[in-house]
Formats: sequence, C-alpha cells, structure tokens
Amino acid sequence: MPLIDLLPSDAPLLPFAAGKVIFAQGDPGDVMYVVVEGQAQIMIDGKMLETVRSGGILGEMALIDAGPRSATAIAKTQCVLVPIDEKRFADLVGRRPEFALHVMRVLANRLRRMDAEH
Amino acid sequence: MPLIDLLPSDAPLLPFAAGKVIFAQGDPGDVMYVVVEGQAQIMIDGKMLETVRSGGILGEMALIDAGPRSATAIAKTQCVLVPIDEKRFADLVGRRPEFALHVMRVLANRLRRMDAEH
Repeated sequence: MPLIDLLPSDAPLLPFAAGKVIFAQGDPGDVMYVVVEGQAQIMIDGKMLETVRSGGILGEMALIDAGPRSATAIAKTQCVLVPIDEKRFADLVGRRPEFALHVMRVLANRLRRMDAEH
Repeated sequence: MPLIDLLPSDAPLLPFAAGKVIFAQGDPGDVMYVVVEGQAQIMIDGKMLETVRSGGILGEMALIDAGPRSATAIAKTQCVLVPIDEKRFADLVGRRPEFALHVMRVLANRLRRMDAEH
C-alpha cells in the first residue's frame, strides 16, 4: 500500500516553494514528512545525497533517535508535505506495520548506498 | 523493554564458537539475529564496523530489503543468538511496535555513524 494511503485523512498539508529549506542539518527536529507532491533534495555537508519524490519520506532520523537533523532538506520543486509528529509516528508504527517496514526499508536503502560509497 | 524480553519463549538458541562466521557479506540471507549472550563483530570489506553485544541485533538489513548480506558477522566471543526469520520478523513488527522502533534506532544509529565518517 502506498505510504500516502496510510496517512490520516485529517493530516495537514504543508506547501513549500521551490528552493525553500524544509529543515537544516544540525537543527533540532521532532517531525518527519511524507512527500505528497513535488520533490525534495537531501544534502549532507553540502553534498547532494538523494532526491525524495512523491510517496517518499524525509526527516525520519531525528524522529527515531531524537538527535539533531542528520541532513538538510530543500524543496527541489514546489512541493507539498504531510508532517508526522512523534504522536502520529508512534500511532502509525503501532497500528500500521507496513508503515514501520517502509521506514526500515528507507533506512536500509540509505545504509546500502553509503556502504557502496565507502 | 529489552529486546530479549520480546522474543517468543519457544525461540531457538544458536551457539557460535569464538571466531566462527555467522554470515558473510554478499551471501543471500533471510534471517536476522538477536544476541542473547556474548559479542559479535560486524565488518564491511574487512573493516571493523561495530561490536554487537547482548540485546543487540545483526543481519536485519537482508531481512528488511531482501538484498544480500551487507556485512560479515563473526562471533567475537563464544555467543548465543536467537534467529528471527521473515515470519517471526513480520509477526514482531505487527504485534510489538517497540521491536520495530528498536530496529529503526539501530539503523538510524548506523547511518549517523557512517555520515560522521564521510
């Protein structure tokens, strides 16, 4: 099931103009985002890491381990995001195992790509 | 709750002698392990990455994305592992959100350490 279909129907929609910073590496953060429309760019130390498209997630690291933002996210195009705060995240993980598996797959995929770069 | 307490009471226990290879990078793999006793060493391309101790997990990557083993795991000391196959994994993720969160934290922690090395 696409991630977007797992979101609560009353989930807020946040629009970002192209070029706008969604969050910045090193900042505190306690919300992740699902991309509903458009594309976001993930960067670490100024290096392009990945483009997240519709159905993808960003900002999940700070939510999982309560650490600072591990990367910067910028709206690559005009985009619409659904924020998922700690309460919604805990609720989704508890009630929708496919959401938890999706987040795990995203993390595993990033780890494999980083391994390959080593 | 410690991860070990989430395991089913009928979970099998696998002993490994010190120095024994638990799994090898590049191999197919469809089971992860929880370390119940002892320590395991994780290596990528011959480089020591991390020591996993009692309560920790290894081998979760191949289970999450059905890819080959991303690392080699070797028993650093005599150790006892509980294998978790796909069925048990899906069951744990579905019934124990804290298990899913634990796996996510392990992956997030590894990602942060790899980011820091870049």
